[in-house]
Amino acid sequence: MTAATPEGFRSWATHLGLSDESRDDFAVVVSDRPCTASVVFTKSLFAGACVTLSKNSVSHTAPRGVVVLAKNANVATGSQGLRNAEEIRDVVAATADVPPDALIMASTGVIGVQYPMATIRGGLTGLGDSSPLDAHAVASAIMTTDTRAKVAVRVVGASTIVGIAKGVGMIEPDMATMLSFVFTDAAIPRDALDLTFRDVVDRTYNSVSIDTDTSTSDTAAIFANGAAGPVPHADFAEALEEVCTDLVKMIASDGEGATKLIVTTVSGASSERQARVVGKAIINSPLIKTMIHGEDPNWGRILMAIGKCSDETDIEQDKIRVAFADIVVFPSSSHDEQANADNATAVRRRLAASTVEINVDLGIGTSTWTVYGCDLTDGYIRINADYTT
Amino acid sequence: MTAATPEGFRSWATHLGLSDESRDDFAVVVSDRPCTASVVFTKSLFAGACVTLSKNSVSHTAPRGVVVLAKNANVATGSQGLRNAEEIRDVVAATADVPPDALIMASTGVIGVQYPMATIRGGLTGLGDSSPLDAHAVASAIMTTDTRAKVAVRVVGASTIVGIAKGVGMIEPDMATMLSFVFTDAAIPRDALDLTFRDVVDRTYNSVSIDTDTSTSDTAAIFANGAAGPVPHADFAEALEEVCTDLVKMIASDGEGATKLIVTTVSGASSERQARVVGKAIINSPLIKTMIHGEDPNWGRILMAIGKCSDETDIEQDKIRVAFADIVVFPSSSHDEQANADNATAVRRRLAASTVEINVDLGIGTSTWTVYGCDLTDGYIRINADYTT
Repeated sequence: MTAATPEGFRSWATHLGLSDESRDDFAVVVSDRPCTASVVFTKSLFAGACVTLSKNSVSHTAPRGVVVLAKNANVATGSQGLRNAEEIRDVVAATADVPPDALIMASTGVIGVQYPMATIRGGLTGLGDSSPLDAHAVASAIMTTDTRAKVAVRVVGASTIVGIAKGVGMIEPDMATMLSFVFTDAAIPRDALDLTFRDVVDRTYNSVSIDTDTSTSDTAAIFANGAAGPVPHADFAEALEEVCTDLVKMIASDGEGATKLIVTTVSGASSERQARVVGKAIINSPLIKTMIHGEDPNWGRILMAIGKCSDETDIEQDKIRVAFADIVVFPSSSHDEQANADNATAVRRRLAASTVEINVDLGIGTSTWTVYGCDLTDGYIRINADYTT
Repeated sequence: MTAATPEGFRSWATHLGLSDESRDDFAVVVSDRPCTASVVFTKSLFAGACVTLSKNSVSHTAPRGVVVLAKNANVATGSQGLRNAEEIRDVVAATADVPPDALIMASTGVIGVQYPMATIRGGLTGLGDSSPLDAHAVASAIMTTDTRAKVAVRVVGASTIVGIAKGVGMIEPDMATMLSFVFTDAAIPRDALDLTFRDVVDRTYNSVSIDTDTSTSDTAAIFANGAAGPVPHADFAEALEEVCTDLVKMIASDGEGATKLIVTTVSGASSERQARVVGKAIINSPLIKTMIHGEDPNWGRILMAIGKCSDETDIEQDKIRVAFADIVVFPSSSHDEQANADNATAVRRRLAASTVEINVDLGIGTSTWTVYGCDLTDGYIRINADYTT
């Protein structure tokens, strides 16, 4: 999967010791040459120190890469938190031989605790040599409650796009997302990159929800270093959307405690906004999430969730069609009991799959939107009732 | 608790057989004389047949009472569902000797299934005599996943206010609530009753959330039959708010799978609207609900939830104070490790209680709002993954 790699990026992934766990918790990716870049941040009012620092760097004319710390969000840590982030960034910049403000920083984990700076300083001293970009190692190093590293790759002409991401709790991105970084050696002008990336972020990261909670650390960034030269933009945009869609499905599948990916497509809406509102109401409903977990075809809960969208006054119950994948459950098609029993059996088979598709046609327009989520399980409760402060 | 009862109301509570369960599932309360009344319904786009029918009756000049069916919501049941509701109402009206459109109807339970009319007709034939209002029997008969009957009573002068309610899933009322009915023998002019009831509903039922899901059947109604004569309106309003607050706390405490009541008060807000937005963000956060379940003082999640309110741009992190009951956790008050350890111990004691208070002072204004919720537990998952369609 990660055989193809964009040229001209190096990476570090290591264990600094931000928590008691022994796995990697620190990663750096740096381009050998200046990049065009686009970065989208959380809209949380209380963004963390790394977001604050990175926002100041975004306007840098020659972005070079990212520094990521896992297990500690460095949020609600005041001016000390900001100084700590800056110190780490500056040490990494010196090691990597790039200007400090050419690096963006990201950090996720516990809120309200200062970084263990003595431990971090010790670790940074022995950082060692970088390797050519090892996306899997980087994706592994930035995990918190993730159970799997998330990497997606597409090749476009002579160039490669590789995306990595972490989830998997406190996720209902608003304008940005969890952490996700995309690297490509395609040459893409900055404005075109920004426009395309924001559009893709909207269709992918902004369309996933694990638990309706918006992280204070969400950051999504793309770096294009041009080492492979220019590619047709439409091909690039399509491949980028595929990479990000892959990552979003991985994030939702690996949602805290999740056993199933839920993909909800709302079609026949009067606007994309409406389709998204309805899709989010469905994907965020704890009654639907638990129903999917129980593999129970209680489609009345889907109507309930659509009905919650009380501002969407042009929606009419009589025009709606609800299906699990290809099996229509509303309106019920038959008064024939055997046909209904067959239908129920088919629905249960769809619900038993690891990916459950809920397809809603509102029947009032031509707009469509797809959202991604997961089931709600005892595992979510256990992870979050026991997650240590 | 139900020793005091308003004069001039009669009730029936019985088992009709709407589901396989053997407990009561049908209740009627009727006033001997015409009432003033106020009724607030769900804003769900897909309100059920009983809501549709009741909306037509609300303007009736002489309301007399309610008919409630539990275990079947009669929602998404089309014109057949409406005819069934009307038939039941008309039979009850004849039995109770009141005009059919003097009764409002309410129904909660599974969505998308027609009433078992043959069974219901048989049961209604043998309805028998009414008793003087037995609030506990009525509250018991309207339960679905509730584990306890919910009744609250206050005496105002010579009059009595008794409220009953049911929860306890699919609850984030929008303009109305779950089912809640209040009966009083105070004489209250219709317009004053309506104004006061809507204000109280806003502060109580509209400020509780179990799971962010808005029911298709929410109905809250008050009937004042005047048998005890007039009372000072301010006293009445205060007692009514107490009754409804009691019921709301009972509903939240008995939320599906809940082990703890969470009461969140947001003060120092720039408006009541802002205080409510922030309070709802806290009470609805699955990460906070699971944290409370785990009795884990991970207050960073409270900051996260406040930070989600990204439209409230006048909120500043530096001005916020967060406390569990009386114990302030943010900003942290001390660099003294012993003091911090003592504080943590005090916090854990507050979290171990059956009612957990989260108090947030935004420090930017003078407005306050209180919202009510509950923890999120394995029990919620079990109830809703296994709840039969």
